[in-house]
Amino acid sequence: MGGDGHAPYAGEILGRFIAASRWEEIPASLRHEGRRALLNFFGGALGVARDPAVETALRVMAPFSGGGHATVIGRAERLDAMGAAFVNTIAANLLDYDDTHLETVIHPTAPVAPPLLALAEQRGLGGKAVLHAFLLGAEVECRLGCAVSPGHYARGWHITSTCGVFGAAAGCARLLGLDAAQCWAALGIAASQSAGLVENLPSAAKNVGMGNAARNGLLAALLAQAGYGAAPAAIEGPLGWARAMGDAPDLRRVTGGLGTRWEFARNTYKPYPSGIVFHAVIDACLALRVPGEAIAEVVVAGNQLLLDRGDRPVRNERDARVSIHHTAAVVLARGEAGPAAFSLAAVRDPAVAALRGRVRAVLDDGLPRGAARVTLRTGGGEERSITVTAPRGSEGQPLTDAELEAKYRANASLAGMAARAEEQIGLLWSLEDNPDMAGLMRRFAAAASPG
Amino acid sequence: MGGDGHAPYAGEILGRFIAASRWEEIPASLRHEGRRALLNFFGGALGVARDPAVETALRVMAPFSGGGHATVIGRAERLDAMGAAFVNTIAANLLDYDDTHLETVIHPTAPVAPPLLALAEQRGLGGKAVLHAFLLGAEVECRLGCAVSPGHYARGWHITSTCGVFGAAAGCARLLGLDAAQCWAALGIAASQSAGLVENLPSAAKNVGMGNAARNGLLAALLAQAGYGAAPAAIEGPLGWARAMGDAPDLRRVTGGLGTRWEFARNTYKPYPSGIVFHAVIDACLALRVPGEAIAEVVVAGNQLLLDRGDRPVRNERDARVSIHHTAAVVLARGEAGPAAFSLAAVRDPAVAALRGRVRAVLDDGLPRGAARVTLRTGGGEERSITVTAPRGSEGQPLTDAELEAKYRANASLAGMAARAEEQIGLLWSLEDNPDMAGLMRRFAAAASPG
Repeated sequence: MGGDGHAPYAGEILGRFIAASRWEEIPASLRHEGRRALLNFFGGALGVARDPAVETALRVMAPFSGGGHATVIGRAERLDAMGAAFVNTIAANLLDYDDTHLETVIHPTAPVAPPLLALAEQRGLGGKAVLHAFLLGAEVECRLGCAVSPGHYARGWHITSTCGVFGAAAGCARLLGLDAAQCWAALGIAASQSAGLVENLPSAAKNVGMGNAARNGLLAALLAQAGYGAAPAAIEGPLGWARAMGDAPDLRRVTGGLGTRWEFARNTYKPYPSGIVFHAVIDACLALRVPGEAIAEVVVAGNQLLLDRGDRPVRNERDARVSIHHTAAVVLARGEAGPAAFSLAAVRDPAVAALRGRVRAVLDDGLPRGAARVTLRTGGGEERSITVTAPRGSEGQPLTDAELEAKYRANASLAGMAARAEEQIGLLWSLEDNPDMAGLMRRFAAAASPG
Repeated sequence: MGGDGHAPYAGEILGRFIAASRWEEIPASLRHEGRRALLNFFGGALGVARDPAVETALRVMAPFSGGGHATVIGRAERLDAMGAAFVNTIAANLLDYDDTHLETVIHPTAPVAPPLLALAEQRGLGGKAVLHAFLLGAEVECRLGCAVSPGHYARGWHITSTCGVFGAAAGCARLLGLDAAQCWAALGIAASQSAGLVENLPSAAKNVGMGNAARNGLLAALLAQAGYGAAPAAIEGPLGWARAMGDAPDLRRVTGGLGTRWEFARNTYKPYPSGIVFHAVIDACLALRVPGEAIAEVVVAGNQLLLDRGDRPVRNERDARVSIHHTAAVVLARGEAGPAAFSLAAVRDPAVAALRGRVRAVLDDGLPRGAARVTLRTGGGEERSITVTAPRGSEGQPLTDAELEAKYRANASLAGMAARAEEQIGLLWSLEDNPDMAGLMRRFAAAASPG
């Protein structure tokens, strides 16, 4: 019970946790998960640093930037911390190639890391403080997501944006050294900024919800530091965040086992830049493929979720990333499922298009969520079949550090930074020993504007 | 039906309306309502220009401002357009002393006018374009509010913030000269930024929701201009704005009679800086008051809404603005109900406090919403009673232009600008003839930082 006899508020408990957490109490395995998440994050942002969606965000934000204190990853341009947080978050999540907390489908790192990195760069902070604040922010984000899942997302809320603003606020509040009451206020201010719609996911408006989660979370912490307050029950009150958004929040998921059980420890990383339910299809096709073999028919079986998400016409690269037919065809045709496999060029590749026409999607309710069975019929009449239930990157088969490094190298190459990849990987693995985040961040900037 | 056979989307119809509207088609009475709204807006922002909440917002935003293109009303400091929009919106709505669209309880002007004024100042646009864009933005804002009222507010959404971002986006899209498709996109991008909670209204977090509506609406228009798109049905789709927020939207209220029936024509202005349901109490007390008369008891009768909102302990100025007891007591003690009557000093005034103790609130279900009956028993045993059903400022008894001017002068005095008030009033009445908004805005800036 709180001092005035009430049961403690959710924000109050989280505020105390954020302010009081000690580095020594963070398990070594969780610290390593944080480093893995950041390695994956930087690579994702680098890979699309020259994407028009990133360039547009950068161009629109530049005139509203109070100085160039912070790096835009993979770019030569610099912005203030709010602008850099906005653009780097958009980049990190642009292709949905980032990390995933599977229970909530939150992509935890994209909205939380960028404002912390920008703040640390501007203020000359060290890597340990950033990693610690990041783990706390991501934990708050995932826990709030758990409290309102699965209804929240199903109702139309883009949960990474709506919960990301809390994660960013929590992380920034910690990095700024706010006390427990201020951390509580920052979360309450974040509640009044929580926004983002599933309806908008197939459009650039999705980027805006993501970028705002980062920059508005930073704003929440700065305003709390300057004395702005919020309602005590902004998160769970009768007219507060969770209920306005349609949920009776399960507050045990927010506060139960805080500091001992870590939701963020369940973070996962994508090996392929496509919808996560298609990853079993990719693994099956990679295993079945014989280069040069003539293929008569491909039958992909999955449960209703797979068919709902993936049985659709393929007109462009957005469709390709969520198409059963394209996924199977491109992997069987090319033997790989990297960014190029889901590009517009791949959609238009005649060999891939021809094979897409021979892919059939069928329902098998007996298969679990995330699983797929692929059956290949060759020109010679042979038939081979494989069922994958725990694809690479899932909780049951996490990507290894070496696999994350390989993914990073591929992304760095897309940014024209292959030559710097090993140095960058080393900087991130040793993040907590780095006293100079400003120096670190500059190693992820481009030397000059791409022409 | 649209070109591909679908019924037109809400955003599509609004986008066409915003882009195609012609100044000549705006009724003269509506243009005048726009001028009245802006006069009321500038006064409200001036009156609190030195409030700590405004100063905090300004101080936090200043380092994130890309130059000083725009005036902060009543201040010497200047910010970029996004920062100025944020701070001016907070100021205009700080005391809830601004305008009200009564059906939705939206305060229409605060989130819409500031980004337009800032953009116009930065780009050297004229007053007619600003007034036109403002009327279109406020119309879109009120219509979306009507489509989701009354459930939206009741569920916990601070409707001025959640709908204000659409109004700001619509107005800015028009002022930037976007085409119909871009205006549609701006509204869709606004949908992913719509936020703000009723739970947070008694705190500074309310200011953040308000300021964000303005700056994020501007961002939506700028991103749409730069090519960002949104989902076609971002407003009404199955996973879009209205449904995520809990409503089956009444789209007839969004698009019915567009350009002929103006929701914004129903805008009203507060004569008193207190909750609108208390205005009938104030008018009754002003009419009953005899200066110097000894008062034994005051009985205030109202319906359940009045009692729900106003029967509470009074500890500070926030409570005072929504207290039946303070309202009746201060008006009977002082004979006025301006900003000073709802200050902390008034709350602590022994004469007012003593009289508060003699006020009794009673239920009379027969009285309509917004009405009150006040009965005064004097020390000498006399009893007088008055019932007010249409208080000053309501739709039935709108404030006259002269009353709005008087309110403006009082606010300008609070900002130390009494000497400039007549010139400022003249500038606003002749707004549409002013070719130079940059020059105009500078007349509302303070000469130097208040010491």
